[in-house]
Amino acid sequence: MDEHRFFTERAVALAEEGIASGGGPFGALITKDGKIIAEAWNRVVLSHDPTAHAEIRAIRMAAESLSSHDLSGCTIYASCEPCPMCLGAIYWSGIRSVFYSCTRIDAEDAGFSDNLIYRELMLDPAARQSSFVRIAVTGAEEVFRKWKADETKTKY
Amino acid sequence: MDEHRFFTERAVALAEEGIASGGGPFGALITKDGKIIAEAWNRVVLSHDPTAHAEIRAIRMAAESLSSHDLSGCTIYASCEPCPMCLGAIYWSGIRSVFYSCTRIDAEDAGFSDNLIYRELMLDPAARQSSFVRIAVTGAEEVFRKWKADETKTKY
Repeated sequence: MDEHRFFTERAVALAEEGIASGGGPFGALITKDGKIIAEAWNRVVLSHDPTAHAEIRAIRMAAESLSSHDLSGCTIYASCEPCPMCLGAIYWSGIRSVFYSCTRIDAEDAGFSDNLIYRELMLDPAARQSSFVRIAVTGAEEVFRKWKADETKTKY
Repeated sequence: MDEHRFFTERAVALAEEGIASGGGPFGALITKDGKIIAEAWNRVVLSHDPTAHAEIRAIRMAAESLSSHDLSGCTIYASCEPCPMCLGAIYWSGIRSVFYSCTRIDAEDAGFSDNLIYRELMLDPAARQSSFVRIAVTGAEEVFRKWKADETKTKY
């Protein structure tokens, strides 16, 4: 069987395990060199953690196991198209290859906000349903200037 | 002084504390009923956690302190416009009010991917720089059907 289909099916199986364990209906796993290095399902309600999506949890576990914030070269498989939070985490982690089965529309049909958040993100901050207000603080950019000038920093 | 400006200035001060402590140049805090319940700065490199942005850390801390995934009624203040990952986390947490100082363009100018990720999110998955491939697994939607049918679940 095709490797990518095999791991995507495993991500769906993790979603099933998750829902059977009182979690949300989403699963994800991360591979490196063709081997699974992290598996997770959604634990938002169980963990009292709104960020505990399957993909976020798998990314945190994989990074911990590699002792690095950089997961370049890894691949992520998810039972459903990653929401904007998880997609952002995937980019920040350096993962460049994503496979998924269900879509944001399937998730919306099941009562989840994935598609709403995609739509909100595309709007100008001032046009969103939630309130986004910029208050320009004097000297705020100074922090970025310090960062740019620091030659010892680890970029991420 | 205006309360929102006061807390936004505090978020910038947290970014300064962060960079002085070896963290990334971003800070955030969350208030409830006008009182700070969580403060954080970016610890991506220090923690080996690509998700350890200031906002994500503050959301996780606030949810833990309230023993709930639901932060409705809270307000978040950030030194910089939240990236797509953090914006997604804000929506999932139920926070409806966001204040920030610097913008995604300032962050991009300092070498960060915030603006790139915003642009990528808006594209069709197949058109992105990273590879997003859908593999439809037979029965994957069944997990969502089970979720919809479960009348004991906690929605999130």
